[in-house]
Formats: sequence, structure tokens, C-alpha cells
Amino acid sequence: MQLGHWLAAVRQRRPLVHNITNLVVTNTAANALLSIGASPVMAYAHEEVADMASIAAALALNMGTLIPETVEAMRIAGRAANSAGVPVVFDPVGVGATPYRTETAKDLIRDVKLAVLRANAGEMSVLLGLPGQVKGVDALAADDALPMAMKAYAAEKGTVVIATGAVDFVTDGENIWQLANGHSLLSSITGSGCMLTALLGAFVGVVPEGSTPATFAEACIAAVTSYNVAAEQAAKLAHGPGTFQARLLDSLYTLEPSTVDELARVQLA
Amino acid sequence: MQLGHWLAAVRQRRPLVHNITNLVVTNTAANALLSIGASPVMAYAHEEVADMASIAAALALNMGTLIPETVEAMRIAGRAANSAGVPVVFDPVGVGATPYRTETAKDLIRDVKLAVLRANAGEMSVLLGLPGQVKGVDALAADDALPMAMKAYAAEKGTVVIATGAVDFVTDGENIWQLANGHSLLSSITGSGCMLTALLGAFVGVVPEGSTPATFAEACIAAVTSYNVAAEQAAKLAHGPGTFQARLLDSLYTLEPSTVDELARVQLA
Amino acid sequence: MQLGHWLAAVRQRRPLVHNITNLVVTNTAANALLSIGASPVMAYAHEEVADMASIAAALALNMGTLIPETVEAMRIAGRAANSAGVPVVFDPVGVGATPYRTETAKDLIRDVKLAVLRANAGEMSVLLGLPGQVKGVDALAADDALPMAMKAYAAEKGTVVIATGAVDFVTDGENIWQLANGHSLLSSITGSGCMLTALLGAFVGVVPEGSTPATFAEACIAAVTSYNVAAEQAAKLAHGPGTFQARLLDSLYTLEPSTVDELARVQLA
Repeated sequence: MQLGHWLAAVRQRRPLVHNITNLVVTNTAANALLSIGASPVMAYAHEEVADMASIAAALALNMGTLIPETVEAMRIAGRAANSAGVPVVFDPVGVGATPYRTETAKDLIRDVKLAVLRANAGEMSVLLGLPGQVKGVDALAADDALPMAMKAYAAEKGTVVIATGAVDFVTDGENIWQLANGHSLLSSITGSGCMLTALLGAFVGVVPEGSTPATFAEACIAAVTSYNVAAEQAAKLAHGPGTFQARLLDSLYTLEPSTVDELARVQLA
Repeated sequence: MQLGHWLAAVRQRRPLVHNITNLVVTNTAANALLSIGASPVMAYAHEEVADMASIAAALALNMGTLIPETVEAMRIAGRAANSAGVPVVFDPVGVGATPYRTETAKDLIRDVKLAVLRANAGEMSVLLGLPGQVKGVDALAADDALPMAMKAYAAEKGTVVIATGAVDFVTDGENIWQLANGHSLLSSITGSGCMLTALLGAFVGVVPEGSTPATFAEACIAAVTSYNVAAEQAAKLAHGPGTFQARLLDSLYTLEPSTVDELARVQLA
Repeated sequence: MQLGHWLAAVRQRRPLVHNITNLVVTNTAANALLSIGASPVMAYAHEEVADMASIAAALALNMGTLIPETVEAMRIAGRAANSAGVPVVFDPVGVGATPYRTETAKDLIRDVKLAVLRANAGEMSVLLGLPGQVKGVDALAADDALPMAMKAYAAEKGTVVIATGAVDFVTDGENIWQLANGHSLLSSITGSGCMLTALLGAFVGVVPEGSTPATFAEACIAAVTSYNVAAEQAAKLAHGPGTFQARLLDSLYTLEPSTVDELARVQLA
């Protein structure tokens, strides 16, 4: 699978990504998008989110510090994006931590058609109704309960489903891919998953409308791999989480498409 | 035009700048103000913004992630600042992107008297009712439609008007200055314009009350030039947008007034 | 007093700290907690703050950019934490700057039982009703009005009280400690006090329930000293406030418990 050309397309077309995201990562998500070459816009007012989502190349919704006003903004923007054929990425941050988060996430995935659903393994298990608590995806195999549930959900909904961790799983409902790039420092900065969600918006923002889930999945694999390769390169120049964060933006900015293809560790599971 | 003494005045008097700004740049605007030597305060509650604006040296309003509650806070604070003789800087971020933004910006400039209006060229064109879309100011000449409209607006309102880009235009309604400092990395970090808006608050916060627009314009030219010279110096030590952002704060902190005067590229247009 | 073992306990137990904090420092507070080895969560919705506070190891409340909705969230979360035996840290940012802030802070300390009250000296003077304005704690002696008022308040309420500055004062109502670590660059970055408030949450989050104020005070002294020693080390590698902030997170991440004990400058006042 060639991935670098997706990064080149983002750089060339500078897709406008409308983010409704959490208060922790507003700045870093915008900076990640700028660094990769996309155009971020953050807009929350009920009075304008439908307009903004409709002119965007993608809409990225993140539930991190949800309040009812923001949830309603996500719903309005999500429906407008659906009407306009703009792909929607959803990150149900913290689903399962409180009943309010769980209900809200379930309401949103019922009301808005998603191009991409991204969460960590524990959140994904809650959302897909798996029993028990999943602490990480390090030990998951592709025939374990979670990847199988993700694949079934993806097939049913026509949505790309991504569970991230030390190993990332991506499925379009037909295949499951395992992605092995990345660095442990990502778990020592806040919003590393949220930045990825924003970047997924940039990559699906350059997928031609009407493409199959398989094509969206390929763009998503390119997003995850570009981000994780950038993290690997940033870690070499970092002395801890603070300098890593600065270097991660630098790496996203300087990352060559050919480097993504050289270093990608992607396989069918 | 000597500019460095304005920076020295900011350092000496540490003006309190009350910011009502967007969620993306709240942290970076506060840090830019601290780095240059001013005192930032962020306050949004309708219950306190009039009190806070009245005791501040300047009020900086930024429309980036506007919601109705914040817009009303801007109006309350702006009117209190007007009553107390506190200069107001306004940044109509994203005006033109949605009808809501355009209406809100027009309402605010009707309801609040501004000391400084700052936007990029495209936003400024929308706000001043120019037809067509202006993508950048690189190619603008001072007798082009936008600078002429800015000058007319400044003269009518007694407001300094600034359009930023690869070249920045500043007018007090009588003269138009062209400012040529800066670095392209500024466009790869989020909130670079918003940080400048906050810094404009610091510089107009040390202008004596009752000064002419020409004096306010000089302080604004000093703010833009100080910021852009700091960016030039930061870029030399940066490896991309992440390290640039850290180095930009360092440069604002260490910038010498004499360096601003040495490196300033300011001319009457 | 041995302090390093508290840092080791934070690293080992990764306490979940629920933060209701201000818009300026949301990202940096989360990153400081991750860097020290704790788990941050930011949650504001009235619908979930009681649930979240109840499952947290500590609740950190920060009044920086208060609006009525956030104040109510603090009250709901604070009461839930009190019911669940979860220690509460409160930072009355800007109390005294406007009547609204002063009233809100007084309401909150009446409605919520605090494990720790932290402010700078000026804010603490306002809150404890001392006349006049205190500009810094550099010149304070332990028998001055402020430390004596802090001690009396701590004894009355069973709360650890901390006033930070170039010298920090900590009291459990019986003793007053003077802490002399730290670096002047802390005052050139925004949210340096707010990051400490978040870290205090991590350290009191590993204090066994039912411990005496003296034990909570020791954990607080460990938090303040760990943070200030990290700042000292970060300053050696910084070129200004921007690189300092990145290096501060690096230092919190790499700080050894034994280094805290070696470099601690703590004495009974």
C-alpha cells in the first residue's frame, strides 16, 4: 500500500478542517493541522457551525471536554456535513468514564453518519458494547473480540473504525490492518490522540467524494502512519515531553512523503 | 521613525492587557504578552468584564471562536473601556467565512469605538465592503483599493487600521506605512495574528490618553515591527513550527529596543 | 523531611486528577500532570462533574477564567468530592481584581471543604481579609501578618494553606514552612501557579484518606519543591520563556526523587 501520496495531496490541496474539539487540545490540534499543511478552523457557535461544516473539506468532532452546548454544536455541524457530503471524523474521548459521556457518544453516532470513528481500545470497547475493560491494544490479535467487533461495526455502518495504541487497528469492514509505527512519548503528552483525530480530518478531506470505505481506510492508514513516523523522528531529538511536543510539530512540517513509505509498518491482520 | 522606545516603555510600565480572545490562542496570547514584558489578564464573565476592562491599560478583542456569550462580553467590556478611556484593539478573525461572523464584526465596530482595527487583507476587504476576495497583501500597492479604503475608514473613525500579511499596511487616516519585517513561519503556527493583536494591546496601553491617531499609529508600528523582528530572529534558531513557537517567545523576551530600530523596515507608502 | 518518596508514589500510582481550570492553562496543566506521572482529566459539564470528581484521586479547582457555569461546576464537583472523601485543591486566581472574583472565591470556600488552598500572597491577603496590598512574598517573615493569618485559617479549617512567590509559605495550622526553591522564569510564563495547583492535586491524590493536615502539608511541600527544582533544572537549558516551558515539562518527566531530596530548600519558619 502506497501512503506517501496522501500526505502529498494534503500539502497540495490544504483541506479546510472544521474542528469542534476540546479545550485541552484546541491549540495543538490547530498547530498539528497547520504543520502537516492543512487549514484548521475552530468554530462552535450554533449560529455558524452548519455554514462552516458545509464549506469544509472535513469535520472533526472530539468529545473531550463536552458540555451540552458543544454537543448540540457537534450535532448541528455533523448533520450539515452529512447533507453537504463532507466526511465526519468522531473521537469519543473518555466514553465510559461517566454515564453522560457514554450517552452522548451513543447519541452522536446515532444522529451523525461517520466517515471515521477513532478511539483508544478501552473507549472502543465501551462504545461497541464489549464486556470488560480493555486497557491497551498492545496484546490484541486481529481475531480477538475487539477487532472483530470493530470490523462488524464498520461493515454495518460503512465507516472506517480505528483503535489506537502501541499497535493501531484500522478496519473498513472487510479488512483489518495492523499499524506498528509510533513512540511511547506520545502517551506522555496530552491530546496526542486528539491531534491524530484532527489529522484524520485532513487526510479524509482529500478523499474524492463517493469513494469506497476501502479508499477512506487507505487515507486513514496514511494519516496514522504519517503521524506516528513523525513521532518517531521527533523522539530522536526530544529530551522529554515538552521538547517532544515542539519537535513533533517540526516533524509533521518537514516529513517527506517518501519517508512515510520507507518507514511504514503496515500489515493485513 | 524611532520605534524601540515603545518597546522599552512596555517593559518599564508592564501594562495590564485585558483579553477576550479565542480558545485556540488563549495560552499563546498570554505568553506573548508576558514575554514582551506586559501583564495579561483573560476574563469573560459578563459579571466582571466591565470592571476588568476599566482597570486595564488596554482591551484586546478577538473574534476567533465567537459564541453569543463571548460576543456580549466583548460588547460590555468594549463599552466600559470606551467610558474609561481605555484603548480597544479589535481582531475580526474569520469575518466573511460565515454570515454570523460578518454580522457580529459589523455590530461590534458599530457599538464600540476602536483605537486599532487589525485583520488580514481578506478579512479587511470583507469588513470594509470591498468586492472580491483578497488572498494576501504581498502584491498590494498603497494606491490599491484596500489601502485606500483602510485610510478612508481610519480617517472617518479616528482609528488606526492595520492589514497584516507578508507586507503589513498601517494607516492613521492620513498616512499609510508599509512594514516589511517578518518570516514565513508565522503562517505555519496558529494564532500568529492573534498574538500580534494582544501585543498591540500592550503597545497602545502605554500611549498617553488623548494622543492623536498618529501617535497610536507609531505605537502600532512599533508593535508590529517588534513582533516581526522577533520572528526573524526566532526563525534562525527554529527547525519547524514547533521550535519556532518556543523561540518566538524567547525572542520577544530578549529583544532589545535598539535591535528593533536597527532592523526595522518601515516606509511611508 | 524526606520528600522524594512522594514523587515516587505519584509515579507509581498515577493518580487521576480531575481539573476544573481556566482556559489559559488547560493544556499546560494537563501536560504538567502527565509529565510528573499522574493522569489528568478535564471535565466541566454539570451532567458529569460529580461522577468524575467521585472517581478521581483529587479534584483541582482553578478560578482563572471563571464564568457562572464553571463556578457552578466547581461547586457541584467540590461537594461530590467532599462526599466521596476526595481531597480538593483550590486556586482563587485573581481574587481581589474584581468584586465578582472576590465573591465567588468566598462562596466556594464556604461551600466546599478544601484539603489545600493555594494562592499568591496578594490573592491570599484579599481572601483572608488582610488590609492593604501584598505585592510579593519575597520580604515576608513568618511572623508577619500574612503567614500568621494563613496559619490561623489553616488551623480553623483543617486545610493546608500555601502562598507562593519567590519564597513559598506552607502551613498546616501548626507549623509554617518556608520553601526557597524555584526560578524567576516561572513568572514569565503564564499558568506557572496553575500548573502547581494541578500538581498539588497529584500529590494529595496519593495521601491516604483520613491523614492529618501535617501529612497533607508534607505532600504539598513535596509538590512545591519538586516543581521548583524542576524549574531550576529547566532554566539551565532555556533561552527564554518559550524554551523554558518545554524544558519544564521535560524536567518534570525526568526528575529523580533523590534529586528532590538533594536540592530541597525547606525550613521551619
